[in-house]
Amino acid sequence: MVQTEFWVLKNHFEGFPKLSDFELKEAELPALNNGDVLLESVFLSLDPYMRIYQKEKGLMKGSQVARVLESKDPAYPVGTLVVANAGWTTRFVSSGKDLQRMIPDWPDDLPRSLALGTIGMTGLTAYFGLLEVCKLKPGETVLINSAAGAVGSVAGQIAKIAGCKVVGSAGSDEKVAYLKDLGFDVGFNYKTVWSLAETLKEASPEGYDCYFDNVGGEFSSIALQQMKKYGRIAVCGAISLYNDREPPTGSYVQVPMVLKELCMEGFLVTRWVNRKEEGLKALMKWVLEGKIKWQEYITEGFENMPAAFLGMLKGNNLGKTIVKV
Amino acid sequence: MVQTEFWVLKNHFEGFPKLSDFELKEAELPALNNGDVLLESVFLSLDPYMRIYQKEKGLMKGSQVARVLESKDPAYPVGTLVVANAGWTTRFVSSGKDLQRMIPDWPDDLPRSLALGTIGMTGLTAYFGLLEVCKLKPGETVLINSAAGAVGSVAGQIAKIAGCKVVGSAGSDEKVAYLKDLGFDVGFNYKTVWSLAETLKEASPEGYDCYFDNVGGEFSSIALQQMKKYGRIAVCGAISLYNDREPPTGSYVQVPMVLKELCMEGFLVTRWVNRKEEGLKALMKWVLEGKIKWQEYITEGFENMPAAFLGMLKGNNLGKTIVKV
Repeated sequence: MVQTEFWVLKNHFEGFPKLSDFELKEAELPALNNGDVLLESVFLSLDPYMRIYQKEKGLMKGSQVARVLESKDPAYPVGTLVVANAGWTTRFVSSGKDLQRMIPDWPDDLPRSLALGTIGMTGLTAYFGLLEVCKLKPGETVLINSAAGAVGSVAGQIAKIAGCKVVGSAGSDEKVAYLKDLGFDVGFNYKTVWSLAETLKEASPEGYDCYFDNVGGEFSSIALQQMKKYGRIAVCGAISLYNDREPPTGSYVQVPMVLKELCMEGFLVTRWVNRKEEGLKALMKWVLEGKIKWQEYITEGFENMPAAFLGMLKGNNLGKTIVKV
Repeated sequence: MVQTEFWVLKNHFEGFPKLSDFELKEAELPALNNGDVLLESVFLSLDPYMRIYQKEKGLMKGSQVARVLESKDPAYPVGTLVVANAGWTTRFVSSGKDLQRMIPDWPDDLPRSLALGTIGMTGLTAYFGLLEVCKLKPGETVLINSAAGAVGSVAGQIAKIAGCKVVGSAGSDEKVAYLKDLGFDVGFNYKTVWSLAETLKEASPEGYDCYFDNVGGEFSSIALQQMKKYGRIAVCGAISLYNDREPPTGSYVQVPMVLKELCMEGFLVTRWVNRKEEGLKALMKWVLEGKIKWQEYITEGFENMPAAFLGMLKGNNLGKTIVKV
C-alpha cells in the first residue's frame, strides 16, 4: 500500500487566496495494473495561471517533474524522470499516456526542475508568445512586464537573441538589477517610478513595436498609449487582475486600438503543443550557450505549497517558482 | 473671382460637440494655374471618425463627391465627377493629384453619393475589416454593432454573402426592422433589451467567432465574454467613447483575451489603399446584383453640416450620412 499526500482547494478563491483555502489530504494509491507506473513528485511548478484556472474544488491542478518508483510499463523503468500534470500531489499512478519524457541528453549539471520552467512550459510560453504572437523582428523595441518572473525573464532574453531592444518592468530594485544581468536594455521598478507613462517614453521615445503583457490592468492601459502604429500586444497573463474581489475597471482600449491600428492577442502555450519539441530544443540550446540565464525561486517541502503559491502571487519570486518535495 | 464657403472648427470638441464649436466662413479662391481644377462639392460625407480625428482648429476635414467647374487640366474636363478630400467646403481648387476618379461605368440610376458610402470609404471599411481583420469564414457567426449605420449595414451584408450567421445591434426599432430587411439573422435594439449579455447568448448560444466593433466601451466588455475560443475582434470605431468629457472606464479586457485566446485588432481603411480598386469593384458588383442594399440619410444644405454631424453622432441616421449641397 502506497500513501500519497495532496493539496485540495477547499474554498473557491475569493480575492487574494488564503492559506485556509487549501487543505492537505492523504490517501492510499491503488495497486498497479499492467502498463501502470507509480511516480513521486520531485519538483512541483507554481504558476500565476493556477489562480484563474482552478475553478473546481478538489485536487489543485499543476505539473511536476516526477520519478518512476515502480513500473509495470517497460517504457518507463524505475528511476526515469518525466514531466507530468498530476496536480499538487506527492505520489501518483499513471497509465503512462499523460507522461512527457524529458528532452534527451539533459546535461547532468543542469537541474531537472528547468523542465518546468526555462526549458519547459514557461520557456515555451515566452518563445511562442514572442515569435508567433508578437511576431517580433530584429531591431524592434519590446516592452515586457513582470520581467523578472518565470516567463518575462525568458521573453526578454529571447528578444535580445532576436536582436531587439528590450525594456522590462519589475517590482523591486533587486529584480531590476537582475534584468540588467540578463541583458535588458532598460529595466525599472514600476512601484517607485513617479510616472509609468513618462518612464516608458524615456525608455523608448519612439514607442514600442511589441508588448509582452503578463500584468494587464492599468499598466496595460498606459502601455497601450506608448505603442507604435501597428504595434502588437501578446497577452500572456494579467496577474494584476487575478486577485480583486470586484473586477477592477480602467480605460477602455478601443480608441488607442483604432488610432494606432494595434493588434492584441491573448494566448495559451497549449496552442503550440505540436511544436513543443522545436521550442524545447531551441531553449536548451540557448541555455547551454549561456544566451539564456535562468533563476529559480525554490521552496523546500511539499507542506509549503500553498504558502509558496501565495508568495509568488505577491511577487516574492525571482524567476520560476518551484517547490522541491 | 470665385467665392467659397467652408466650415471651421472654432473650439476643440469637449464632450458632445456643439453647434457653437463650428463657424461658417467665406473666402475667395485663387485664379487657376496651368494644371489646376476648380471644383464644387455635390455631396459631402459625414462620419464618426471626424469626432476624434479633427484635432486642429481650422477647416473641418472630410471627403466629398465634387464636380469640375473650370479646368486647366485636360485630364479633368468640366463636368467630371470625382471624389476629393477637400474638407467641409463648397468650392475648392485642386492640382488634380489628390482627386480620385469615380469607378468606371457607374450606372446612371445609381446615386453618385454612394462613392462616399457603400461603394466608397465606408463600404471598403466593412470589406477589409471583415475579410482581412476578422478573416471570417463561411459558417461562422458574426456580431456587428451600430449595424444599421454606414459601415455596419454593409459589413452585415458582406458577412451574409460570405455565408455567415449575422447578429446585429442597433439603437431603435426602426433600425432593427431595417436589419431584418438587409438579411441579418438576428437584430435587436440594445437600448431596450433587458440584458445585453442574455440577448447575445440567446442570439447565438454557442458564442461568436467574429465581432465587428463600431461601438467599444461597455458593449464590447459584454461582447468579449460571448466570444468563442480564438474569436477575432475587428475594432473599426468606438462611437460610445468619443463624446465623454472624462474617458469612461470599464472592465479590463486581458482576462477574457487570455482565457479564450482572442485576437483584437484596430484598423483604418487607409491600410488597404493599394487594394481599393478590388474592393470598390466587389462592392459595385454586389450592389448591382442586389446583394448589398444601401440606405442614405441625406440632409440638404451646406449650412446644415454641423447639425447633420451632431445628428449622426446621436444615431439619427439609417445608413450613410450625406449632406447634399
